[in-house]
Amino acid sequence: MNTATSLPDLSRLCIHTITTKSWAIETSVAKFAAAGVKGITVWRDALAGRDVAQTGRMIRDNGLSIVSLCRGGFFPAATSVDRQKALDDNRSAIAEAHALGAPLIVLVCGAVPGQSLAESRKQITDGIAALLPDCQASGVKLAIEPLHPMYADSRSAVNTLGQANDMVEALKSPCVGVAADVYHLWWDPALEAEIARCGKLNALFAYHVCDWRTPTIDLLNDRGLMGEGCIPLRQIRSWVETTGFNGYNEVEVFSTRLWAMDQDEYLAQIVQAYRDFV
Amino acid sequence: MNTATSLPDLSRLCIHTITTKSWAIETSVAKFAAAGVKGITVWRDALAGRDVAQTGRMIRDNGLSIVSLCRGGFFPAATSVDRQKALDDNRSAIAEAHALGAPLIVLVCGAVPGQSLAESRKQITDGIAALLPDCQASGVKLAIEPLHPMYADSRSAVNTLGQANDMVEALKSPCVGVAADVYHLWWDPALEAEIARCGKLNALFAYHVCDWRTPTIDLLNDRGLMGEGCIPLRQIRSWVETTGFNGYNEVEVFSTRLWAMDQDEYLAQIVQAYRDFV
Repeated sequence: MNTATSLPDLSRLCIHTITTKSWAIETSVAKFAAAGVKGITVWRDALAGRDVAQTGRMIRDNGLSIVSLCRGGFFPAATSVDRQKALDDNRSAIAEAHALGAPLIVLVCGAVPGQSLAESRKQITDGIAALLPDCQASGVKLAIEPLHPMYADSRSAVNTLGQANDMVEALKSPCVGVAADVYHLWWDPALEAEIARCGKLNALFAYHVCDWRTPTIDLLNDRGLMGEGCIPLRQIRSWVETTGFNGYNEVEVFSTRLWAMDQDEYLAQIVQAYRDFV
Repeated sequence: MNTATSLPDLSRLCIHTITTKSWAIETSVAKFAAAGVKGITVWRDALAGRDVAQTGRMIRDNGLSIVSLCRGGFFPAATSVDRQKALDDNRSAIAEAHALGAPLIVLVCGAVPGQSLAESRKQITDGIAALLPDCQASGVKLAIEPLHPMYADSRSAVNTLGQANDMVEALKSPCVGVAADVYHLWWDPALEAEIARCGKLNALFAYHVCDWRTPTIDLLNDRGLMGEGCIPLRQIRSWVETTGFNGYNEVEVFSTRLWAMDQDEYLAQIVQAYRDFV
C-alpha cells in the first residue's frame, strides 16, 4: 500500500479546539461532527467553567473521539517552589484528562530564558519522571512535543525529535511518548530516521499537521493551513505511517489571519485542505 | 588558560557594516577605528557606487582588517538558468572580495519554498563545488553559514552546524569552511560536539555574535545586542576557542529597534557589550 496518497475519508481527521478558538467547545463539537470530523483535541482553556466529565460525555455523544488534552508541561523553573507548582499543575491536567476521557496529554516542556538548556532538559526529564505514578494510576499517557528551535528561549528546551526520543529512552515508561508536529520538525535533516526510531520505541503517540508560510510574519500565530506553505506533508505522513502509526492526523493551526475569517467557511477549508494536502 | 573570561581588549572585535547600516561605509570605518574596533566585515550593499579596491585601501589605511565579505550563496533555484545566475553572482562576489582584499565570503546558502530540502542541499553542494576553481585562483575562501531552522523555507537549507560540517567533509577543499553564528546555532544540543568537529576539520573560519531576545517579535530584524538575551555567549566562545580559533568575534546584529537609536551611542553600547558579555 502506498501510504503517501490522499486520505480516502475523514475517519482520521482530528481538529484542535484552538484551531477554531473563537468557538465555544459546544459549538466546535457540533460543527466538527456535522462536517464529518471524527476526532477532537481539547485545549484546557476550552474547559473553563465547565463540568469536565460532562463535557467529555457531550463530546462522545456527538460521535467524536477525544484524542488528547493540550497541554501540560512547562517543567523548568528557577526555584524548586516553582518547579513544584508546575508539577501540581501537571497533576491537575492529568486529573482533567482522566475526567474528560482523554487518553493523552501533550507536553510543551518549557524553558527559562537564561537558564542553560542542559539544566532545563534535566528539569524536564525529572518533571516527567515525577508524574509517572499519576499516569500509571489514571491510565493517562504523556506525549513530549519537541518544539521548533525558535521556541528554545522560553517555551521548550526540547527542540528535535531526536531529543524527544532520547528522553523517551531515558524514562523507559510505556506512559511516555512523543507528539510529532510537522511545523516544529519539518526542517530537520534527521527527521525520517528519528520518526522511524520513534516508531521502534512504540512512542509515536500523536501526529499534528499545519503548514509553514513564506514569509512567516509572527513567531507564534502565523501558521498556515495545510497546502499554504512549504512543508512536505505527504512525505512526512508516509514516514509516520511506515512506522505503523494509524492514529489521527490532528489539525493544529494558530493563525491570527485564519481566526479572523468566518469560522464556518474556515472549517470547510480545513476539511478540503485535509483531503487535498495531508 | 581559561578562555571563557572577559576579553582583555578590542583587538579581536569586528563589526559588520549591516550592524550600523544607516552609516555609509566611510563613516562606519572612521567611527569603528576611533572606537578601537579592529575588524570590519563588509556587506556588499555598502560597496554600491564605490571603487571596491579603493574602498579596501581606505579601510586598511584606517587601521581596520577586512574580515569577510557578506554575502554570497543562494544557490538553489527551480531552473538551471536561475542556478547559473546564482553562480555568476557568486563569481562577482569572489571578484569583489579579491578586489576589496577580503579573504573570505560568508555564504547564506539559499532555499526554495516547496523544493525539497534534500534537493536544495544537493544544489548548494554542487554550487559551492563549481566555485572552487575561482576560489583557488583568487585566494578567496568560502564559509558556509548554517542558518536557524526558522529560515529553512527560503533562506537556507543548511540549518545545523552538523550539516555544514558534512558539506565541508564532502567538498574536501581547504577553500571551504564554516561561519558559526550564535543566533542560528545556540539551541542545538549537538553544538559543543559539532564546534569541536569543525575545528578538527580546520574549517572554523568565522564566529559571529549577537543575542536572542525574549520575546523575539520579528523573525529577521529583532536580534539583541550581546547581553540582551539568553544565548550563553561565554560558554560558546570557550567551545570555539578550545578548537584553537583565535580569529575575530564579529558583531552582526539586525535590529529595527537598535538601528533606530543614535548610532554613536549604539556603537559605544556595542563596545561595552563586547567587553561585558562576549
